Amino acid sequence: MALVPLPFERLIKRLARLPGLGPRSAQRAALHLLTRPQELADILHILSEVGEQICVCGICGNLGMAERCHICADGVRDGGIICVVEGVDDLWALERSGGYAGVYHVLGGVVNALEGVGPDQLRMKELVARVEAGGVNEVILALGASVDGQTTGHLLAERLKPYGVVVSTLAKGMPVGAEVDYLDEGTLSLALAGRKRVA
Amino acid sequence: MALVPLPFERLIKRLARLPGLGPRSAQRAALHLLTRPQELADILHILSEVGEQICVCGICGNLGMAERCHICADGVRDGGIICVVEGVDDLWALERSGGYAGVYHVLGGVVNALEGVGPDQLRMKELVARVEAGGVNEVILALGASVDGQTTGHLLAERLKPYGVVVSTLAKGMPVGAEVDYLDEGTLSLALAGRKRVA
Repeated sequence: MALVPLPFERLIKRLARLPGLGPRSAQRAALHLLTRPQELADILHILSEVGEQICVCGICGNLGMAERCHICADGVRDGGIICVVEGVDDLWALERSGGYAGVYHVLGGVVNALEGVGPDQLRMKELVARVEAGGVNEVILALGASVDGQTTGHLLAERLKPYGVVVSTLAKGMPVGAEVDYLDEGTLSLALAGRKRVA
Repeated sequence: MALVPLPFERLIKRLARLPGLGPRSAQRAALHLLTRPQELADILHILSEVGEQICVCGICGNLGMAERCHICADGVRDGGIICVVEGVDDLWALERSGGYAGVYHVLGGVVNALEGVGPDQLRMKELVARVEAGGVNEVILALGASVDGQTTGHLLAERLKPYGVVVSTLAKGMPVGAEVDYLDEGTLSLALAGRKRVA
């Protein structure tokens, strides 16, 4: 006989697959739900509701409740600027910053030779098609400051060259609240190279 | 317009309530599910299956798939020894240790004046009734080595006194793999007081 009834075991194993949860915290989360029928019912309800309604936006790849996400459907946003992000979480982070009024394009990752992710696995063609269709003045590459992110950025810039749009990347330098003596050498040299005159 | 569609927001908030998940990891877990329809469907299936089948054992309070949990229903286990635990996770941990062949009693917590948990909120009466019914030789108190756990243990020992059963607690001392110089004073003095002659 199993130590733990099989369906519980399965639930724990499933939860442990979620990012941020290990086997231990998955067990705690499972027990939390198992001993609280109301919360279990609530989470079931929300999951099935979300599962039924979720849509991937046909334009930008964002998640939404309709064929067009609420950003692409928003007439006030500037369709002339496309901000390219790796994933929906990056899009949400930029939205939370409140500093962006253009539209997005979710790539779905970055190229990574080791993991076998090439340009064809990403939504690059879709981006090029959007630019090709016209009306786009600038493409902002808001990709991670990692090697893979930068490689992906170069590839994209290369592919967008024929269309004569401005391609920019996010500024690199000191994060807000950082202390100079705690910054790594790479960030410091980028911050130095990108210094701005104030007087 | 919300930054994130409302159902996603609700899902993230729900997930963030699970122990071990903060707002950030709840968002990551939600996005993980939202971008993987198959995993979302699987987790939905398992949750609804578990939700339908789950039962609290009428004897010991363990979670199971029937009115009697698989431990109480197991004829091989020694019904003469009852191990009292705070929660089902403690029961699972003891089962995993493989060193126990008796049955259990899940208290459902420990007394805690600050949180308003008194003996009546716990399954104490049910334990006393099991002992009163006869056939029990020993009650092992496997409660946490905290003030609340120890208080609860004293209360239980007091209530079980009239029935003449042996009441024991788990040994206290050095955990396996511990170094003496890293042990706290409380554990060290308990380990000293409970020293065992080896030669």
